[in-house]
Amino acid sequence: MTTENLLYEGKAKKVFSTTNPDEVIVEYKNSLTAFNAQKKGEFAGKGALNRDITSFLFQALAKKGIPTHWIEDMQEHRMRVQKLKIIPLEVVVRNILAGSLAKKLGRDEGEVLSRPLVEFYFKDDALGDPFLSEDQAMVLKIADEKTLQELKKKALEINQALTPIFAKAGLKLVDFKLEFGTNPQGKIMLGDEISPDTCRLWDEKSLEKFDKDRFRRDLGGVEQAYKDVLKRLKG
Amino acid sequence: MTTENLLYEGKAKKVFSTTNPDEVIVEYKNSLTAFNAQKKGEFAGKGALNRDITSFLFQALAKKGIPTHWIEDMQEHRMRVQKLKIIPLEVVVRNILAGSLAKKLGRDEGEVLSRPLVEFYFKDDALGDPFLSEDQAMVLKIADEKTLQELKKKALEINQALTPIFAKAGLKLVDFKLEFGTNPQGKIMLGDEISPDTCRLWDEKSLEKFDKDRFRRDLGGVEQAYKDVLKRLKG
Repeated sequence: MTTENLLYEGKAKKVFSTTNPDEVIVEYKNSLTAFNAQKKGEFAGKGALNRDITSFLFQALAKKGIPTHWIEDMQEHRMRVQKLKIIPLEVVVRNILAGSLAKKLGRDEGEVLSRPLVEFYFKDDALGDPFLSEDQAMVLKIADEKTLQELKKKALEINQALTPIFAKAGLKLVDFKLEFGTNPQGKIMLGDEISPDTCRLWDEKSLEKFDKDRFRRDLGGVEQAYKDVLKRLKG
Repeated sequence: MTTENLLYEGKAKKVFSTTNPDEVIVEYKNSLTAFNAQKKGEFAGKGALNRDITSFLFQALAKKGIPTHWIEDMQEHRMRVQKLKIIPLEVVVRNILAGSLAKKLGRDEGEVLSRPLVEFYFKDDALGDPFLSEDQAMVLKIADEKTLQELKKKALEINQALTPIFAKAGLKLVDFKLEFGTNPQGKIMLGDEISPDTCRLWDEKSLEKFDKDRFRRDLGGVEQAYKDVLKRLKG
C-alpha cells in the first residue's frame, strides 16, 4: 500500500489515493484553524496527536459495534481508511451548552441539556457551513429524511459510546462534530476524525478546557492539552 | 373603547392597553425598517395601508375558519385586537426560495420548493432573531413539541388559505412571517400582521416585487407597491 496522488487538501488533513480504489490514506496536518480558517496556527506533533486520538477512539467505537472508516495507522501520522463518499453535512451532538449555540442564544456556557441535541450544518466552507433544520435539508434536497434519521441515530449512539470513554479519562464530552459518508457497498459509516479539534472536552472537576477552544480563545497550553487528552485516554 | 397606556412600541407598531384587560389596540406606524432596524425609512400612509391589508387578510382567514386576534378596525390606522401572550418564535413559511435562505445556501432566488417549508426564528432583536431547529427549540425550552407541531400545522393551513387569495390578486406568495400567541382562554391564534412588510409577493407574470424587498434593496416604488397590493386584493 503506497500513497499515490493527493486527492484533497483540507484545513487539517490531506487525502491521498492508493493502489486500492476503495481505500485512501489520510495525513493529519500540524495546522490548527478556527473561525472558518480566519485564524491559523500550528504546532509540531499536532497531526500525530490527532491521528493517535482519532485512531484510539475509532478502535474503541469498533469494539462497541460502531463501524468507522479506520483500517490501520501508518507512519508519518497517516491513517489508512475506507474511501467514503462524504455526506455534505456536519453532524454536531451537544450534551452541554457551549460555543456558537450559547452565543446565538445569549446564554452562558455550561448548561447541561435535558437530552443530547443533534444539529446539522451544511458542509460548505464558502458559505461558512450554515446551520440547517431537518426540514430545510429535506426540502432543499441536501439529504433525504431516511439519511437524516440514520445520521441522527448514529450520532446519538456514538455520543452514548464516547461519553463513558471520556468519563474514564476524567473529561466531560461537551459537544462534538462528526462527518459521515457512504462506503462502496452503500453503507453509511463514520469518517473524518474525533479529536480535540472536533470536540469540546472539559475536565470533569475543574472544567478546564482540553480542546481547540484553547486556540480559538488564546488560552495558551494548546499543545499540552492535546497531549493530555491522548495520555488520559490511554490511561 | 379608548386607548389608555402605551404597552409596547416596536419597529412598525405601537400597542396600547384599553379599558378591557383582554383587548389591546394596535397602531400601525409609518416607519419601515430592515436588517434588524439597521436600515430605516418611512412614508406617509404606510401604517394605514398595512393596517388595511392585514385587516382584509385577517377577515378573509376568519371566513376560512382560521381565527386571528382581529376584532375591528379603528380610526387613525389602528386595530382593536384580542390581547395575546406572544409565543417568542417567528414562524416563516416559504413556497419559493428567496431572501436569507437563498443567500445562506448560495442559490438563486426563484426556485419553487417541492413542498412549503416552515422555519422557526427565536424572536429576540438583541440576538438578531436567530434561526432554530425544532430540536433546539425543544431542548433549550423555548417551545415544547406540542406547541411547535401546532404552530407548524397552523402556518401551513394559513399558507393554503392565503395562496389563492394572493393568486386572485395576481401575486405569488413567495414567503411570509407569522407570529402567534395564546389568548386568555389558552387558545393559540394568529397575531401580529400580514402585510408587504412580512410577506414576499411577486407579480405572477413579471415576477416584479410588491413587498419590503423594494425598500431593503433600494428598488424604488415602495409606496406604490404597497398601494397596489391593497388595490389588487380588494379586486
